Amino acid sequence: MDGLRCDGGRLNARLEQLGAVGRLEDGSCCRLALTDQDRQGRDLVVSWMRDLGLEVKVDRVGNLIALRPGTADLAPVMTGSHIDTVATGGRYDGCLGVLAGLEVVQVLNEHRVATRRPLAVAVFSNEEGVRFQPDMTGSLVYAGGLPVAQALDLAGIDQSRFGAELERIGYAGAMEPGAIVPSAFVELHIEQGPILDREGGALGAVASLQGIAWQEVVLRGSANHAGTTPMAMRRDAAYGAARLACFVHDLAWELGGVGTVGSLRLSPNLINVIAREAVATVDLRHTDERVLRAAEARLDAFLRELEQSGLGVATRRLARFEPVVFDPGIVQVIERAAASLGQPIRRMTSGAGQDAQMLARICPAAMIFVPSQGGISHNPAERTDPDHVRLGADVLLRTLLALTEGD
Amino acid sequence: MDGLRCDGGRLNARLEQLGAVGRLEDGSCCRLALTDQDRQGRDLVVSWMRDLGLEVKVDRVGNLIALRPGTADLAPVMTGSHIDTVATGGRYDGCLGVLAGLEVVQVLNEHRVATRRPLAVAVFSNEEGVRFQPDMTGSLVYAGGLPVAQALDLAGIDQSRFGAELERIGYAGAMEPGAIVPSAFVELHIEQGPILDREGGALGAVASLQGIAWQEVVLRGSANHAGTTPMAMRRDAAYGAARLACFVHDLAWELGGVGTVGSLRLSPNLINVIAREAVATVDLRHTDERVLRAAEARLDAFLRELEQSGLGVATRRLARFEPVVFDPGIVQVIERAAASLGQPIRRMTSGAGQDAQMLARICPAAMIFVPSQGGISHNPAERTDPDHVRLGADVLLRTLLALTEGD
Repeated sequence: MDGLRCDGGRLNARLEQLGAVGRLEDGSCCRLALTDQDRQGRDLVVSWMRDLGLEVKVDRVGNLIALRPGTADLAPVMTGSHIDTVATGGRYDGCLGVLAGLEVVQVLNEHRVATRRPLAVAVFSNEEGVRFQPDMTGSLVYAGGLPVAQALDLAGIDQSRFGAELERIGYAGAMEPGAIVPSAFVELHIEQGPILDREGGALGAVASLQGIAWQEVVLRGSANHAGTTPMAMRRDAAYGAARLACFVHDLAWELGGVGTVGSLRLSPNLINVIAREAVATVDLRHTDERVLRAAEARLDAFLRELEQSGLGVATRRLARFEPVVFDPGIVQVIERAAASLGQPIRRMTSGAGQDAQMLARICPAAMIFVPSQGGISHNPAERTDPDHVRLGADVLLRTLLALTEGD
Repeated sequence: MDGLRCDGGRLNARLEQLGAVGRLEDGSCCRLALTDQDRQGRDLVVSWMRDLGLEVKVDRVGNLIALRPGTADLAPVMTGSHIDTVATGGRYDGCLGVLAGLEVVQVLNEHRVATRRPLAVAVFSNEEGVRFQPDMTGSLVYAGGLPVAQALDLAGIDQSRFGAELERIGYAGAMEPGAIVPSAFVELHIEQGPILDREGGALGAVASLQGIAWQEVVLRGSANHAGTTPMAMRRDAAYGAARLACFVHDLAWELGGVGTVGSLRLSPNLINVIAREAVATVDLRHTDERVLRAAEARLDAFLRELEQSGLGVATRRLARFEPVVFDPGIVQVIERAAASLGQPIRRMTSGAGQDAQMLARICPAAMIFVPSQGGISHNPAERTDPDHVRLGADVLLRTLLALTEGD
């Protein structure tokens, strides 16, 4: 089986074909979860699954599990990802992992390769979390992290309900989420960051996933005349927010993670009025939970400083996920698969959240990254070189072959 | 004439009555320049002027000059201010200077005091500059700083034209602006800042007016994923703007002026996306032109630093006024007037722009400030203690009496 290779042309063509579903005029994809566009995308993927002879199961939160039997009655090895997109997404994010799984199946079918363990290709619902929050809903439920009833009751940004929309698009299945516990899970995904692209196009063996701490910080000062209020008599919420953004930046550098103030709103936001209020978001991420906690404590201490400088400070936690350490054994299998193809691969961490982090709760899991040109993602300009698409699928193929032979 | 005093009750009642014109539900005044509300305010003030026997002249840009004859055929001593407001203004800003001028006339009339020089009470058009820019339009034209034709052609924020609106409200007069050059100009105004209020309620003899440098700064970076983009690979426009706001703050402290970033807009302004663009405004003010120029040069150098850090930087000058040094002789007359009343007064600078700075181009000028409670202005909560209103008018009365006797 060392000679098996994926068909890059076929895989890239399917990415193109799925990317045309929900395509907007600017070339971006809009397939928000459980919309008509998502249904069209699902219908297309399911038709491909059936063409490949896979048995397609749909669970109660709309996750699709397509099964290829093994020779032994064992838990399957699972791969997959998601096909929902952000409002103006690209055509690789998520779709690559699903379609590469189908490509692997097709290569195995064409070469009549029987695997010991069954193989499963999964499509998880609402990974992006744009229409319904939390994100990664489908995989979270699948891993037992959110009760089905709660998921079905999630309210959409458009007054919709998750359960009702699932019924409407015909993907409210009967299977209990998590009923099929895989022996291992491997997800192929685009990096969505610049590291691999800048470093010359090696692939990534993803050994961990950053923890995330999101907060909203509201600073309250006094709106006063910018000309007549001496510096010593000011309570300037904008200056407080500026100090906060600099602090977050410096903290992330110091601790070796990432830190971002990406959103900031001032009131009244006028040239000649000192800001009364600033509403900022803080996004802190680190691979080490202890360091992430230390960063949060340092941020808290800094906010107390701002308070002592005369500003009102209120915070609201928006999200908090601990870092995930993927299974070292599977990471090694991925590295060996790449090595057997003569393909350079480097160990790395995932900066973004991924379905694989949820599956890691119930089985050994890891990920394969391919480079994103310019690090661009969630954008119509999102692009991965067709050769990298093929190489990623080849590494996935060899990884899955190795894992299906395991105990 | 040492026994003459203004009638505080009457003056405060007129402030109240004028403040009711254009009053909104929240108690604020909305008399944007050359609107129907401005016309109603003008009509009320003109009726008071005529009741006091004043000759009311209207010039081509709508400035009102109300004249009380003197015993000698000399240039008049002028006082006054404006009665237009910001969109949600208070009832003291501008109005106090106009109505205190009328109060002085009424006291002189009641006591049959004849002055050597004529006395003029002026109402200048569009001081606030909310509806038509530049602000201080009327006094700027009066002082020869803007041709009449250009003023009449100014476009309003509501698609209106200054000249057409002036015709519409019936205040397009025949007099050439600046035709009556005063021998001196004194403006009574609220401080609009916290200094006098915090220092126990002394009045202010305004000896200078800060220079103003306004810029818009546009910083351009790259929008990238906040989780997957390492700190070293970022071009973060929000972080650049935060550094800018901190720099402006520290610079103002260091140089003894004021500096404010009051407005900041990020794009795309999302929690998990590094900002692609930041549009910030910088407001720098200082009483010393050399220092203000040095501050602008330091700001430029800092922006070059931001550019070298990888951000695109574009700037646009929004306003630039040199500092004004008022006439020291008139400042002394004001101080003596206060001293003769046993009223504490302190020399100070004006943080805000004022009609008096324009009049200072054509005659000796200075200002009297009364405290603003809590430093609040441009706000329905704008308030000056009724006693301070009366004391300010008394200092104005004595100052004008002294100036009308001068050569």
